[in-house]
Amino acid sequence: MTDARWMGAALGLSERSRGRTAPNPNVGCVLVRDGRVVGRGWTQPGGRPHAEAMALAQAGEKSRGATCYVTLEPCAHLSPRGPACADLLATAGVGRVVIALGDPDPRTNGAGAARLREAGIDVVEGIAEAPARAAMAGFFARQARRRPFVTLKLATSLDGGIALASGESRWITGPEARAHAHLERARHEAILVGRRTWEIDRPSLDVRLLGLEARSPRRLVLSSQGDLARPADIAGLEGVDHLLVEGGAETAAAFLREGVVDRLLLYRAPVLIGGGKPALADIGLTDLAAAHGRWRLSDTRMLGSDRLEVYASN
Amino acid sequence: MTDARWMGAALGLSERSRGRTAPNPNVGCVLVRDGRVVGRGWTQPGGRPHAEAMALAQAGEKSRGATCYVTLEPCAHLSPRGPACADLLATAGVGRVVIALGDPDPRTNGAGAARLREAGIDVVEGIAEAPARAAMAGFFARQARRRPFVTLKLATSLDGGIALASGESRWITGPEARAHAHLERARHEAILVGRRTWEIDRPSLDVRLLGLEARSPRRLVLSSQGDLARPADIAGLEGVDHLLVEGGAETAAAFLREGVVDRLLLYRAPVLIGGGKPALADIGLTDLAAAHGRWRLSDTRMLGSDRLEVYASN
Repeated sequence: MTDARWMGAALGLSERSRGRTAPNPNVGCVLVRDGRVVGRGWTQPGGRPHAEAMALAQAGEKSRGATCYVTLEPCAHLSPRGPACADLLATAGVGRVVIALGDPDPRTNGAGAARLREAGIDVVEGIAEAPARAAMAGFFARQARRRPFVTLKLATSLDGGIALASGESRWITGPEARAHAHLERARHEAILVGRRTWEIDRPSLDVRLLGLEARSPRRLVLSSQGDLARPADIAGLEGVDHLLVEGGAETAAAFLREGVVDRLLLYRAPVLIGGGKPALADIGLTDLAAAHGRWRLSDTRMLGSDRLEVYASN
Repeated sequence: MTDARWMGAALGLSERSRGRTAPNPNVGCVLVRDGRVVGRGWTQPGGRPHAEAMALAQAGEKSRGATCYVTLEPCAHLSPRGPACADLLATAGVGRVVIALGDPDPRTNGAGAARLREAGIDVVEGIAEAPARAAMAGFFARQARRRPFVTLKLATSLDGGIALASGESRWITGPEARAHAHLERARHEAILVGRRTWEIDRPSLDVRLLGLEARSPRRLVLSSQGDLARPADIAGLEGVDHLLVEGGAETAAAFLREGVVDRLLLYRAPVLIGGGKPALADIGLTDLAAAHGRWRLSDTRMLGSDRLEVYASN
């Protein structure tokens, strides 16, 4: 119970660098001694220092005998950019290490935990695995599926419209929902829109939140003339482990058709449009039975008078 | 606080006869003595006996000195079908009467409460007014707007589709949502669909819930050739204070265009259709600003893997 609580704190820290650490995972770490936090760390932008190194530096001498809660197995490999975290933890005299998930990177993959045990440290694995996998979704998508973790954002009326038939689309959702959508942008390495949306709407696709302006992600356009001609081409995007697809209806449908959407962000305003432009073009569905069981509601909340629903791919 | 709680019980009873009492209101009543319920009543199908008469009959001698919680002001008018409830309460020796809402019927409209006070009974008014107005929505719509209270039901995918482009529409929502929709049918005096839906889908529009088969409401079809050519014609429907509009997209739009929808029942399945048939045809919206502020989320719940949202008209 207490282990799960401290791991929750480490997971919270890992979220701070989501979208900024590719190709490294966004790890979070908490050092606890005598029931108090003595060090906190998260993977820094660009991937270094690692979360454990940052937490140990903060704790200093207080690391001795502390318990380390870390969302991913500490690395076992030396790098030109720093020593292995397993060695750092052993040297610092940490007494116990609690790990959420093993590192699938072949250079670590069990070797980190083994090195800690060899150093006489008590190691516990498998605490809060599912939340950890969700918190480092980009890293795991890249490892397991060789492509970024893809979130599709849709902002619609209650009847699924994204614009009047005339094209007017500003604004369907309110300021709270739009602010939340900007925060989501800051959690992605890149945002993608279709060529038509890019040319017609000229979206700025930046993060317009006070203090987070510098977190605006890379902008990408899906275009038959460009490097990204098809959704499958996202596999080749370097430094992008979290991709946010923002539309329009054809682009959203193209990603769904190719089965590369992992998460839906559905912002819904309490308005009816009626006969408006639909959020989604044809996704190649030929019978309804095939549509069922694909999505699972994972979160929902009010944002002003709008409602956010988050669906995870099953 | 206690008054509000007992009134809540009376409101629960009033729901038992929603959709079965038109043109009478579906009133609920609880008689409480020494902190215990001694009688419960609700308007019986067809409108008589009234809730107070039923509760008094159940309580018998225990009515003496009891407090009566009733969702609508007791009637002051004699009828060939029974005496005035205000007189019944006075004769039974009730000590106190708590009323949620005054009766707008000109034959009562304050006269019921006055008659009780003249008989030396302590009368409290205005407890739980808003919930009482919602529980007897049909009666109040008829009194204030001279038409039934109209609920529009939509069952859609996340992207607002009600069928594949091919027309396939069975099933989008699951068995729990469909059972709930059948329960809603039982709370309405009539269900309406458009002529095309009637001819193409041949919906049975009955209540297929064990024990409630007899609660299937009257079926109506909106058709330019019939008595109900336009949504406004519902004003002339006798014995219908709650009307459920079940589609299709053109009929739903026609009711919204004429501004006669009071409540939306939105059943949403966690599926994406993409390029499907939209839930709503053109409702005559010309700018988005005009769409805002019209609807307010009043209830939401999961029904299996589907989600129900209820919106009230502002």
